[in-house]
Amino acid sequence: MIWLDGAPSPALPLPDRGLDFGDGLFETLLLRRGQVLFAERHFERLERGLQVLGFPACLQRVKEQLEAAAAAIALRGWHWTALRLTLTRGAGPRGYAPPPQPQPRILLAAVELDRDCTQMLPAASLSLASIAWSTQPVLAGIKHLNRLEQVLAAREYSAAGSDEAVMLDQAGQVVSVVAGNVFALAGDRLLTPPLRACGIRGTRRDLVLQAWAPALGVPVAECALSVRDLEAADEVFYCNALLGVRPVARFGDRVWRRHPLCHALHEQYGRALP
Amino acid sequence: MIWLDGAPSPALPLPDRGLDFGDGLFETLLLRRGQVLFAERHFERLERGLQVLGFPACLQRVKEQLEAAAAAIALRGWHWTALRLTLTRGAGPRGYAPPPQPQPRILLAAVELDRDCTQMLPAASLSLASIAWSTQPVLAGIKHLNRLEQVLAAREYSAAGSDEAVMLDQAGQVVSVVAGNVFALAGDRLLTPPLRACGIRGTRRDLVLQAWAPALGVPVAECALSVRDLEAADEVFYCNALLGVRPVARFGDRVWRRHPLCHALHEQYGRALP
Repeated sequence: MIWLDGAPSPALPLPDRGLDFGDGLFETLLLRRGQVLFAERHFERLERGLQVLGFPACLQRVKEQLEAAAAAIALRGWHWTALRLTLTRGAGPRGYAPPPQPQPRILLAAVELDRDCTQMLPAASLSLASIAWSTQPVLAGIKHLNRLEQVLAAREYSAAGSDEAVMLDQAGQVVSVVAGNVFALAGDRLLTPPLRACGIRGTRRDLVLQAWAPALGVPVAECALSVRDLEAADEVFYCNALLGVRPVARFGDRVWRRHPLCHALHEQYGRALP
Repeated sequence: MIWLDGAPSPALPLPDRGLDFGDGLFETLLLRRGQVLFAERHFERLERGLQVLGFPACLQRVKEQLEAAAAAIALRGWHWTALRLTLTRGAGPRGYAPPPQPQPRILLAAVELDRDCTQMLPAASLSLASIAWSTQPVLAGIKHLNRLEQVLAAREYSAAGSDEAVMLDQAGQVVSVVAGNVFALAGDRLLTPPLRACGIRGTRRDLVLQAWAPALGVPVAECALSVRDLEAADEVFYCNALLGVRPVARFGDRVWRRHPLCHALHEQYGRALP
């Protein structure tokens, strides 16, 4: 099911700056029985992105169209749905400069998921991506449409047969996995890389930092992590909107057999579900 | 006029990875009476991009569709045409990883130009972009679809009323203008920044380096340039496929009133036209 500006549509009118330049934003939403999980956190990130890119205000329109799509999904009786929201700056004349009064386009694409998202996925095997995140403080944190680095990293780990890959920054420090944020337990402290120069500030990352780890009494902080720090960690997991939290079983030669913290965080996640 | 995979089309079928992730490449071609200028240089860059992104071979298909589009443009009697060629990795399942056997889509969008492109544009006024190019050696030089930095820089200089803006790298060295490569004449040497960590290797940049400056007996080289180097230059110009070469009249407080080298290079350019 695909909707464009509120109406079912199988195609994007051309030209569109989202295609031409990646001039837009997206969110990957998980819905349970037609209800968007943690919607406010997605809207907060979207709002930050709209400000960075200088889009006209359109969040209200997004919310209305999302509500209508969610209602249609609920009517279909889908249990779990992945819904991609894409927001582009719309049409424009030739050239990089946006039109003075852009008309953003809102795309919603829904896919039914066949797994029970209350169940934690089995522990993942990670490789190390050969491409690093580029350094760009202006765009760090937001979820814009310029995603070639992750595409190349995903192409590589798929070919290698691993489940995910750790991505570094240009200085060789750990940033994330391709589609998620990464956490490492070092002693009694849970750590995740800061995202000042690159990476995406995930909604589930913020929930671990601000809600789920504190609820367990686990001290958690942003902290630079090297590959060696990750290998030396007592436990490693990553998170994103579709997976919740997922433990890591292997990274290179390092193997983790137990994931008590990740299980406890998954339980917190489960309690937060509608 | 827009063609998708060889047929007139006003829309892009969804999903498409070009929209979802900027997973694709483009070229901006200038046509004179339906003839693509310096086509081989565009194909060379496209070929490098296809290799970096790991697309299946499709250059022959691109050439055939481009030929057909050029013939249609010639039939219309358009004198000068800007033709954007966009190549995406096509449809795919959800997620960053490309499908194992992608079916790239070829989009061609033609616009008639109303100016006489044999005439050099008047000298331009440049500002300094506040956003810098991100550092990404893997993608440097190729013309992929991840262009948000240039969009934000163009938005800024348009609002400020200048013609173009100088963009720096993360270390503060000069890279380019938003839509073109930049050259500075320092004494008798013509210099342009290397593009190892960011920027696009322009077809006209290569022509200045390899053909037009050598034909004038002007020593030309890649060399790191600071903002101060640019301000101290005897002459500054930039180049791209639609403009050819364009002299710079002003950058910040620095003013240049004469542009003899740029005029001579424009004459070389004119001789190379069909």
